[in-house]
Amino acid sequence: MDRKIALTGDRPTGCLHLGHYIGTLKNRVALQHQYDQYVMVADVQALTDYFANPSKIQESLLEVVADYISVGIDPNVSTIFVQSQISALPELVMYYMNLVTTSRLERNPTVKNEIQQKGYGDTIPVGFFCYPVSQAADITAFKAEIIPVGEDQLPLIELCNEVVRRFNRTYNTDCLKEAKAQLSKTSRLVGIDGKAKASKSLNNAIFLSDSADTVKKKIWSMYTDPNHIKISDPGRVEGNVVFTYLDAFYDEKDEIENLKAKYCKGGLGDTALKSLLNDVLQKMLLPIREKRATLKKKDLLEIISEGSKKAAIIANQTLQEVRNAIGINYQSML
Amino acid sequence: MDRKIALTGDRPTGCLHLGHYIGTLKNRVALQHQYDQYVMVADVQALTDYFANPSKIQESLLEVVADYISVGIDPNVSTIFVQSQISALPELVMYYMNLVTTSRLERNPTVKNEIQQKGYGDTIPVGFFCYPVSQAADITAFKAEIIPVGEDQLPLIELCNEVVRRFNRTYNTDCLKEAKAQLSKTSRLVGIDGKAKASKSLNNAIFLSDSADTVKKKIWSMYTDPNHIKISDPGRVEGNVVFTYLDAFYDEKDEIENLKAKYCKGGLGDTALKSLLNDVLQKMLLPIREKRATLKKKDLLEIISEGSKKAAIIANQTLQEVRNAIGINYQSML
Repeated sequence: MDRKIALTGDRPTGCLHLGHYIGTLKNRVALQHQYDQYVMVADVQALTDYFANPSKIQESLLEVVADYISVGIDPNVSTIFVQSQISALPELVMYYMNLVTTSRLERNPTVKNEIQQKGYGDTIPVGFFCYPVSQAADITAFKAEIIPVGEDQLPLIELCNEVVRRFNRTYNTDCLKEAKAQLSKTSRLVGIDGKAKASKSLNNAIFLSDSADTVKKKIWSMYTDPNHIKISDPGRVEGNVVFTYLDAFYDEKDEIENLKAKYCKGGLGDTALKSLLNDVLQKMLLPIREKRATLKKKDLLEIISEGSKKAAIIANQTLQEVRNAIGINYQSML
Repeated sequence: MDRKIALTGDRPTGCLHLGHYIGTLKNRVALQHQYDQYVMVADVQALTDYFANPSKIQESLLEVVADYISVGIDPNVSTIFVQSQISALPELVMYYMNLVTTSRLERNPTVKNEIQQKGYGDTIPVGFFCYPVSQAADITAFKAEIIPVGEDQLPLIELCNEVVRRFNRTYNTDCLKEAKAQLSKTSRLVGIDGKAKASKSLNNAIFLSDSADTVKKKIWSMYTDPNHIKISDPGRVEGNVVFTYLDAFYDEKDEIENLKAKYCKGGLGDTALKSLLNDVLQKMLLPIREKRATLKKKDLLEIISEGSKKAAIIANQTLQEVRNAIGINYQSML
């Protein structure tokens, strides 16, 4: 029986961090044995934000692939590919753009939020404005049925499925498949400053590629409870980043509850807590770091080259079906 | 010395007519010896209007190519190609979309007019909205410097050149070239009904592929002066389609002036005038019709196949330069 296809990916705009690990990477390591998994390094989509700073993308590309391999995404099981290497994708975008209206894009909650966050005002780059159509091309090119996403991404999957239905209806075909969002169970990981989600751009994240020393330093700088001065002071658990990270990465849930009670009462110092988190994270990150050290640039390039070749074949098949459905496949006339 | 490159083309949404002949086709026959001329059958652009009716495009594609060859565009001199066969074009569109804002497109006078004409209101298909960016890709892919256009198209060339300048500045390159509009000297040809410009969709045009009989019938149905009942009645030249067509297609300018004077005074009948126009047009159309009769489907397919292959090579070279400039050419890392 054919396995269903799952599509995931990341914009290569920096190394991946613990937020990615807990939010999606760990999940992909499991998913790859359940589904036929495609993992896309979305460099073209990254350009919609970083068009004026493309060197960031080039620098990050292989780092992201190294992160994938280090955490256990197996290039012999998953297909790791680079978006810009799949020439069928932009062509699909051209055909899908006819089936979406500008007002539909403007009303999309995800796009709306991001336009506000980025402060684009009236000067929205057309590439950014159209990226949901580009995502529809990514998803449908591989006939992906399973899309692991966060809740904020749901309107994008909805838009993709609208394109699918409209395409199939307009061209009297069933060649495109609707996709299903697989909601991530974990909420977003806060940054070590406690102020926002861990993010590459805010530099408040612990990266998978950080050295043991750096990880320790970042843990020691974590936001806890500013009113918890002396060990004997009662402390707050809520908003305390060390506890948030323990909740996310430490499996001994009973022990965490005991520590929280003690912290609230007073008598547990931040240093002891941070030492524990350091032990937990170092233990988790060590094999990732060791795997990373064995990866050579040449091997990473080979992985994306092979993966992109394989992905291009699948995407081209879909493109041919799309062209046949529209009726502009003149090769067939030759 | 290298010749400059000229790019022209048509949306394949029907056969070409006398308006195309006088407005652009005749000019291309001359241009092909002066410039390195690319003639694009713009099927992808046609889809932005005809996405729900793509069979029109498939039916028209070879007719348009037959029109080209019939009027004397020489496939051994000009490169006749089909837009959808050039995969570099949509990829260029993706990169250029980052350099144009939605408000810039909304303010473009050509786009604004067309949105109004088509009655899109708020539901503008994204493909249509973005077609000026697609045109910028067409023009720059071939490094075309000469673009023969009507005045209404000038804002599109302007937008293309904005993309060129912004790309070259952003990526510190000079790989894209600015294009120059070459304004058509002839104004638009009115339809045989005298009410609007000759157009495929209004079916008020004399097609290059019309039979001698059809041409004659269309001339006999031409709008003249509804108050010119008897031959002896004074008639109006202004708005009289027969005179408009004589002005456009008859080289004996002195004779036309004499006829106009006589018509205004009274004493010249519509039938005599239409007979003259029929002689003029049949003489002009006969060699075009004869040439058309020799064209086989197989030969036409070969022409667009060869032309598209040649055009794809040029467009791919530009795409490689564009990728190198942006810095996403990972092949170079391999």
